[in-house]
Formats: sequence, structure tokens, C-alpha cells
Amino acid sequence: MRVVVLGGDGYCGWATALYLSKNGHSVAIVDNFARRQWDHELGVETLTPIRPLAERLSVWQSLTGETIKLFVGDVTEYDFLSSVIQNFEPEAVVHFAEQRAAPYSMIDRKHAVFTQVNNVVGTLNLLFALREFQPDCHLVKLGTMGEYGTPNIDIEEGYITIEHNGRRDTVPFPKQPGSFYHLSKVHDSHNIMFACRAWGLRATDLNQGVVYGTMTDEVALGEALINRFDYDDVFGTVLNRFCVQAAIGYPLTVYGKGGQTRGFLDIRDTVRCIEIACLNPAARGECRVYNQFTEQFSVLDLAHMVQTAGKELGLKVEIDHLADPRVEAEEHYYNAKHSKLIELGLEPHMLSDSLLDSLMNVALKYRDRIDANVMLPRVNWRQPGNPAARKPVEAPARLVAAAAGKSNGSRRNAAAASRELHPKAGR
Amino acid sequence: MRVVVLGGDGYCGWATALYLSKNGHSVAIVDNFARRQWDHELGVETLTPIRPLAERLSVWQSLTGETIKLFVGDVTEYDFLSSVIQNFEPEAVVHFAEQRAAPYSMIDRKHAVFTQVNNVVGTLNLLFALREFQPDCHLVKLGTMGEYGTPNIDIEEGYITIEHNGRRDTVPFPKQPGSFYHLSKVHDSHNIMFACRAWGLRATDLNQGVVYGTMTDEVALGEALINRFDYDDVFGTVLNRFCVQAAIGYPLTVYGKGGQTRGFLDIRDTVRCIEIACLNPAARGECRVYNQFTEQFSVLDLAHMVQTAGKELGLKVEIDHLADPRVEAEEHYYNAKHSKLIELGLEPHMLSDSLLDSLMNVALKYRDRIDANVMLPRVNWRQPGNPAARKPVEAPARLVAAAAGKSNGSRRNAAAASRELHPKAGR
Repeated sequence: MRVVVLGGDGYCGWATALYLSKNGHSVAIVDNFARRQWDHELGVETLTPIRPLAERLSVWQSLTGETIKLFVGDVTEYDFLSSVIQNFEPEAVVHFAEQRAAPYSMIDRKHAVFTQVNNVVGTLNLLFALREFQPDCHLVKLGTMGEYGTPNIDIEEGYITIEHNGRRDTVPFPKQPGSFYHLSKVHDSHNIMFACRAWGLRATDLNQGVVYGTMTDEVALGEALINRFDYDDVFGTVLNRFCVQAAIGYPLTVYGKGGQTRGFLDIRDTVRCIEIACLNPAARGECRVYNQFTEQFSVLDLAHMVQTAGKELGLKVEIDHLADPRVEAEEHYYNAKHSKLIELGLEPHMLSDSLLDSLMNVALKYRDRIDANVMLPRVNWRQPGNPAARKPVEAPARLVAAAAGKSNGSRRNAAAASRELHPKAGR
Repeated sequence: MRVVVLGGDGYCGWATALYLSKNGHSVAIVDNFARRQWDHELGVETLTPIRPLAERLSVWQSLTGETIKLFVGDVTEYDFLSSVIQNFEPEAVVHFAEQRAAPYSMIDRKHAVFTQVNNVVGTLNLLFALREFQPDCHLVKLGTMGEYGTPNIDIEEGYITIEHNGRRDTVPFPKQPGSFYHLSKVHDSHNIMFACRAWGLRATDLNQGVVYGTMTDEVALGEALINRFDYDDVFGTVLNRFCVQAAIGYPLTVYGKGGQTRGFLDIRDTVRCIEIACLNPAARGECRVYNQFTEQFSVLDLAHMVQTAGKELGLKVEIDHLADPRVEAEEHYYNAKHSKLIELGLEPHMLSDSLLDSLMNVALKYRDRIDANVMLPRVNWRQPGNPAARKPVEAPARLVAAAAGKSNGSRRNAAAASRELHPKAGR
């Protein structure tokens, strides 16, 4: 089928575009390279040496004979976006083209406003463009499990049936997001739900958990196709960061008690979930919600798993607890349903099977690219606008993991630096 | 206490500013006159001849000896807004400074995007300004009963306790808003709730019903203090429009079956509710929600009440049913709680008591200013972007109500025009 991947140069977007292309779909990528700009802004780099998109696409074509079409532009510009929809006439639009890091949205007011305006306007534009030019097209929108927060009841997939004062209704599951980024996704979800109801659009809102890993069969075809592997404090996800810390002998930085429990999934499951959603479109007028993750872990669970995996590789991995820079429950009930994608055919990859190959070995392979200065949290939820959060890392010092003697000293510095950044957040 | 009224030149804002000033509070108004601009854009005018704000404030000072401070600017500009907060050091901020018309937000994509960006960014700016400069200040934010939609269960005040799979939690009441405007208020509510949790701000989210009437004791002090009375299809609220239609012998335009039931309140209760909220601030970290309305009516109930009131004044009032330009349930369950403001001392004005004085007589007094061309719905929820919605009324013909003979013909034209605008919306 004809699928546009908005944000196809990003982490999930790139893997998705290749997977769909490999599986016989006609794929177009839309991107404005914002994700690469944010790296420059923050003074960080992906662990893996990703290539320019033009080169990636050209290599993909050489290796597979498949062409992925490219539209360069910003989805917040309606003329651009609507021209893509008219030109490509997609049957499905996969929408990853949003600012997706909670810490980035919490840097300061400007970043909060940017995140919400960018994400909300991009999605509004898409809804209007689909209504006007391609009303039968299926919107596959990436939401986040973070939209639900951590309620003290089971989390359902998007909707919950409530009995109240002797009456009954099925309503959207209440949302309690924990950052301006997560809030932007909640705003999107409400806007999409309304557009489906008012205009008969069809949408699937995929509330995705935390994605880990970088290898997919497609990415593995060539070094120039390599995907992002973010481990910095702003865009890095927790498991990637832990693996990188383990690889250079740094202690794993657990925020607070580490009882924060979330849904996780392998990026190979992300791409499959997207295809499943595309192949099983929502009905006209339907706004369907799937919880897209495969396993639940607490942050401390993950730290222990990385510790064990490190031992197998001969690494000595310690665990540090930092004051939690986020405002979140450090211990809580968490039980989120995630059966709908399984029912449609998803066969999950389990973290225990992929931790070594897809994560630890990638971290080790590229460990001379690791910048140990960018892993401690610089963004404090309670104090947005602190200068440290906005200051790019000056003169990043590349640590060579082999310099084993430095590990203890660096750890002490790391902990001290964190206390400096979060003076009021001590436990 | 020191209270800033954001949007103090608007309908609710003006009445609120005067009421608070009269009751001994130190009041400042912030406004950028956006509301007056939208009238120009749409080619409409308030029924009542409102005076420029500078004149209103100067007359208020002459009549009462009270000074209301004025800051002219846009709350979406952070430097301006934060300077007001620093300069005035308010104990409460009453936030009316939003685009508040559902039909305006549904005109087309640009109006939808404008409404959401304007409202969300203004509120985000306010949250950041309070956090940075006045963290103890109480935010009194105007939401809308429309945030809840029309669920098949009782609507609680902001939060609902859910029992689910043997567990129990109190969570935000699920939101199902029915326009991009109502959605913007839902976005605000989520943002505010998060800011209270993350930063310990104090907020009261007032989910207000449909406000009617124009007379308050303060406004009545002088002709130059007169408040807005909007009756056009975009900014006019349903009861105002019905009274104006009755005054000129036009049939009341009920959308669809008229079973749409909503909460309503007299503007004299609006201003009192605001004061009650200010005098009983939320605690630090608390995001409190009150449902601010006093009575529930269906649209058809209102039409019949206006018909009866018209009869007392010697007016023959007919009722027309138009195809509903909105996407909404035309018959539904509706039972919304609204006891919290009553518990804090609100003594409601009942519509049955104020319909003649505060509404019908105002409509009759200014009936030679009525423009009969602006009362039929020009904005269709299902077809945003239709040119008719954006076309300003050309050469508005002032109808004199006395020209009774025209009534039937006009009605026929009205119905025909409506059908033309909503070709697919026939019942």
C-alpha cells in the first residue's frame, strides 16, 4: 500500500520506512531534519554515525532496488503538507513528525511552547489535509503510553467503560501526562478523536511505550543504513543510556528509587506494529487506540538486567541513584493492557533475548564515540529555565572506555554535578 | 485583593472587572482588543453600543471613584505578560483572554489553528509567568462545560472516582469536546493540572456554562458602561440570539431537534462566581475544578421560554428548526453536578426571573441596531473552509422590527439560505 512516513529521518521513522519498503509497500518520507538540528542545539550526537538522509536513501535503493520517495519540508506548513498528500495520495499516513522528548519540552518556556505548538499544529494540519484531499486515508498516529500517567487502576487501550451512579458509558481513558511533551500528545489525541467524529476520518492512535534497540533486519543490511542510538539526557531513552553507561564503566543513573514502571518495546516490534495498523485500517469515523508495548519494567528492573548482561560481557556495572529530575511517582501501581496488537498478529521480541545483541554490543562497538558528559540529567522539571539546562556542553571530552582507571573518579564527579544541578531535589 | 482580569474588555471580563472593582478589590485589566477585531473580521457588531475601553474606564472612575488599571497587550507575548505580573503583583489572575467561540474555531483550518495556538500559548505563558514571578498567585481560569461533551453518565466537577477491576482511583473526568475551541480549553485544563502538580501552583478551573444577559448592577450605572450583547451566528450565544430574533419578529433558529441540553447562567452569577473563587483560593499544588452554571435547559426549552416571554410583551414568536450545523447529539442524557460554588455562597439568579428584564427588554431597546443577516449559521462543522463561512456580510441591511409584514418572507429566505449553506446537512 502507499504509505507516507512523516518524520522518516528520525529513530522510529527511519526503521519504519525501511521495514515498510522492504515488505512491498510504496513508501514516501517527509522530514525537515529538525531532529538533527536538536542534536546541534544540545551539543550531542547519536552513538551511531548516521548518514545524511539522501545518502541513506540512495544506499537503500542500491541494496534493495526499492525507491523511497522524499519530501523535504515541515508539517506545520500547510501548503507543503497538503501538497504531499495530494501528490502522493497515501492510503496510510504514519505520523512520527513531532518533538518527542519530555526533557526537551521541560527545558524552559520556549521549548514547552515550541513542543506544543509544533506537535499540535502539525497534527491539526494533517487532519485538515486528509479531510480535504484524502478523506479515506488511514492516519496512524504515534501517541505515548505517557498520556495515561500512572493511575491506580488498570490502564485500558484508549477507552474505559465506567459505571457511575447507576448509569454506564464508554469514554476516553482519563489522561494524566507528566511533561509538556506528553501533554502535547494528549492534545493531539483529543483533536484526532474529534476529527474522526466530525469528519469521518479513520485513525489509529498508537500509545507507544519506551522503544529500545537500534538494529532491525533492514538497518543491518548496510553500515550506511544505521539507525540513531540516542543516549544523552534529553533524547536518550533509559535503556539505551544504561547500555552506554555500562559500556564505558560508568554507573547506571537511576532517577530516584527506580520504581517508575513503564511499557517497553523493541524497535523491531515498533515497525511491525505500524505495519499491522496500516494493514488493518480503522473504519471511517473510528478513532482506535492501541497500547503499543510488549513488556513492563521498572527502571530498577532494567538497571539490574543491564548489570547482569554486562557481567556476561566481562563488564563491572554499578548502579547509582540520582535525585529524580522529573516530577513522577517513584513507586506506583502499573498494569497497562496491550493485547490488541498481539491479537492482530504481533509476535513480540523479548528484552531478555535482545539486550546483548541489539543493545550492549552496539554500545560496545561504538564506545569510542561515547560522550560521558551528556548523560547526567540537565533538565529539571521543577526548575525549567535554569541556565544549565540550556547551555550546550562546552568542549565535549570523548572518553575512551578502555581508560578503566577513570571510572570511579568520573562517577564521583557525575554524582556531584547532578547534585549541583538539582540543589532542591535531594531525597 | 489584587486581581488581574485578562481579557477584561470582553463580555464576561468587563462585567467581572467592574464587579470586583465595586466590591473593593484592586483591579487591573489586560486586553489586546482581539474581540473587537473579530467583529470587524466577521462584519458584525454587538447589539449594545459599547464604548472604547479607555472611555469605559474613565467613566467608571468618574462614577465610582475607583480606578481600574489597564495594560494593553497580548498574553501570547511572554515579555508583556510577565511584566504585568511583575508590575501588578496580583493575588489572583482571572483568565478570560482566549478566543471563546466554537463556530469561530470551526470556520477553517487557519481559525482552528489560531484558536488552539492562541489559547494554549496564552495559558502556558501565564503558567510560566506565575511560576517565575508570582508562584503564590491563584489562577482562576475560565474553562467550559463543553469540555465534558455529553456523556451518558453524570458529569462530576472535574474529577471522577472510578472503580475498575477491583481497584479504585480518582482521576480527571474524561473529556469529549465538540469543537476546536472546546478542545483548546481541554488542552488548557491538562496543562494547568500538570503545572499545579509539577510546580505547586494554585488554580481553579471554572467550567462555565452558556452565559446570558448583559445587565449587572455595575454596568447599569451608566450607558457608557454597557456590556456586549452578541447575537451573531459566530459569537452570539443561543439565548441572546433567540431574544433578538423575537424582538424583530424572526423565528427562533433552533439547530436540529433542539434536544441539546447545556448548563446556563446569568452573567450576574458569572461575576459572583469569579469573586467566590478568588476569595477562596485553591491550595498550593491544587487544581480545583468547579462547574459554573446554575440551570440546565435544552435549546428547545429556551425557545419555548422566549416564546412565552414574547407573548407577555405582545410579540408573536415562531420557532424554526434548521439542520444542525454542528456535530453534536440532538437528544441525549445530561446531568451535570454544580454544587461547589453554591456551597461557597453563590445565590443563583434564575432565568425565569431575568428573561424579560435582562434579555428581552435589552433586545427590544436596541432593536433598530439588529442586523438580521448575521443570525443564520454560516459555519458548518462538517465542511470547514467553505467560502460562505469566511465571507463577511456584504452591505448589511438593517431591519426595522416594526416592518412586521416582512417577517414571513424573511423566514422563508432564512431557511432557504441555511439549506444552501448546509447542503449535506439536511435532516
